[in-house]
Amino acid sequence: MGYLRINYDALKNFCEHVFQGYGFPEEESRIITDVLLAADLGGIESHGVQRLIRYHREITEGMVDINAQPEIVKETPLSAVIEGKDAMGQTLGYRAMRMAIEKAKKCGIGIVAVRNSNHYGIAGYYAKMASDEHLIGICMTNTEAIMVPTFGKQAMLGTNPIAFAMPAGKETFLFDAATTVVPRGKLEVYAKKDGTLKPGWAVDENGRESTDAERVLGNIIAKTGGGILPLGGAGEETSGYKGYGFGMICEICTAILSSGTTSNYIYKTPHRSNICQFYMAADYGMFGDREDLEARLAKLMKEIRESDKAEGQERIYIHGEKGEISKEEVLRNGVPVQEKTYEEMRMIASCTHTEQYLPLCAES
Amino acid sequence: MGYLRINYDALKNFCEHVFQGYGFPEEESRIITDVLLAADLGGIESHGVQRLIRYHREITEGMVDINAQPEIVKETPLSAVIEGKDAMGQTLGYRAMRMAIEKAKKCGIGIVAVRNSNHYGIAGYYAKMASDEHLIGICMTNTEAIMVPTFGKQAMLGTNPIAFAMPAGKETFLFDAATTVVPRGKLEVYAKKDGTLKPGWAVDENGRESTDAERVLGNIIAKTGGGILPLGGAGEETSGYKGYGFGMICEICTAILSSGTTSNYIYKTPHRSNICQFYMAADYGMFGDREDLEARLAKLMKEIRESDKAEGQERIYIHGEKGEISKEEVLRNGVPVQEKTYEEMRMIASCTHTEQYLPLCAES
Repeated sequence: MGYLRINYDALKNFCEHVFQGYGFPEEESRIITDVLLAADLGGIESHGVQRLIRYHREITEGMVDINAQPEIVKETPLSAVIEGKDAMGQTLGYRAMRMAIEKAKKCGIGIVAVRNSNHYGIAGYYAKMASDEHLIGICMTNTEAIMVPTFGKQAMLGTNPIAFAMPAGKETFLFDAATTVVPRGKLEVYAKKDGTLKPGWAVDENGRESTDAERVLGNIIAKTGGGILPLGGAGEETSGYKGYGFGMICEICTAILSSGTTSNYIYKTPHRSNICQFYMAADYGMFGDREDLEARLAKLMKEIRESDKAEGQERIYIHGEKGEISKEEVLRNGVPVQEKTYEEMRMIASCTHTEQYLPLCAES
Repeated sequence: MGYLRINYDALKNFCEHVFQGYGFPEEESRIITDVLLAADLGGIESHGVQRLIRYHREITEGMVDINAQPEIVKETPLSAVIEGKDAMGQTLGYRAMRMAIEKAKKCGIGIVAVRNSNHYGIAGYYAKMASDEHLIGICMTNTEAIMVPTFGKQAMLGTNPIAFAMPAGKETFLFDAATTVVPRGKLEVYAKKDGTLKPGWAVDENGRESTDAERVLGNIIAKTGGGILPLGGAGEETSGYKGYGFGMICEICTAILSSGTTSNYIYKTPHRSNICQFYMAADYGMFGDREDLEARLAKLMKEIRESDKAEGQERIYIHGEKGEISKEEVLRNGVPVQEKTYEEMRMIASCTHTEQYLPLCAES
């Protein structure tokens, strides 16, 4: 599959007009685009502009309600629960994390749980909103069930990512990881490559480890059993129950606290995803001088980076570092976009009457 | 190695007298014993009475200061930082989680970070203190560096366990897991068995995966490189950087927030461990009716348990369930204790003049 390169600003301009084309206000279109392209900037293609087609479908088919009026159904100085009313995940997410940030600035901690939301892009985006304001940021989302619990063969939990961010001087520690061993997108990439998955990623319809990409993905699509393994792999030998447990924690924070829908019911109601999210901001100034604590984290990061490398390795990365490296490269050379994605953009431009904003691209 | 069985109450009585023998007040001796035996009840032998010898050494050699007067060095309505002054980890832990619980009951959330503590037993004990009072409980500790970061070959982070508990009707979701793929104790067990580790557990002094238990443990003891892999294993293929990231989150919450000592400096100062811990309690009543939220969690747990089992498996466990099963069995049949551990108990009884409390035991 061929890759094209598109200038970041041109792509941003296009996306903003596309979302306005669907009827989102200018400010919301800006937010949705910013979250979407943050993934491309960070080198996470799966969650970037290649997902435009998915959002296009969800918006035009009415799964996302662009006119939704989300409602705060419960609030305390430290917390809130938002009934999302099927609004766009990114606009809900931005609003919820802003609320959490304001609460944290006022009280020390803010937590907002959202139910009946939609896909919202990368969890790390929202965690970083808090860390950009010198707070610890935590964000989680549940997703359609795809994780098979230890000793099970039926997908019961989502990929259920957990993101955690804290500034460290000029840098940011930014962790953002699915609690499954790999995300679904990775299976798809390997299916396209040679059809063989890596061991320890997935199980078939009998709950047996399988490296057959077509079989595993086919089962997932047909919901005939099997799915992706939790972080730690199959059984107990390499502690797969730990990834399953982190997935449960995500489920508790998102679906249980918001009185929403657990992963095993997500996308089960026609035209609704029922996805739930969790946003937390915490002011570490409660524990010490902010600059001093950040410097302590920066010191640890430096020491880990400078520690001895494994044979054949030249660099130890801190979480968030690869994203920063990617960002510089992408801003310089343009966003890498698959030809197929570009074709989808052309179709979307036509549907939203934004052909005049469709960016030019160069072959990669 | 032979196992003996000791009546739980007799063992409890013995341990309480031992700790009083060292000079701990009655109430503190009760707490330390309760934490210690909670591990044995839950089937986690590594953290139970077999550790008595370790505490004996640390107390008699002065690493644990039994007369320490821990000090609250910073406090807000939601938070506190405690300078532990090398007090016993369990008494500090009990006090810190009690503080977090009181703050959560008053304000919704309480977080206490502790520095210059000592080993404190199982993290899950403290998380469960909060869940027993219908709060979410979170607890973490850093430990001596033994986790090798992704692409590294030098241990930089501890096993850094994370515990999370929430009640679910009559049950409790109780997650308690090292962020390494296995704890050090597991390497020791396999070393004793046949000297061969499972693949994906550890790396040698060159940062290469190794199943040679003697070599890996030898390196760890001699601090000549290598160590245990993060949850997810070596490199990036099965996402070892995620376990490394969860280990970093633990480090931030424990060592950074408390202005304490990161894992790579723990046990590096003579006669001090400098271990740091993190305690959090959160009132989910902020988000909805407590009983209703607990019932929602109970429903999810039931659905996961009742979901289809993998071929050859008969049961899917929820986190904390195996501990409850073990507890029933241990209370009925006695605590399984290795002969070697019993010998250590005899020696400790002699040192603390508690021979008259040394429990009788039956062969297992």
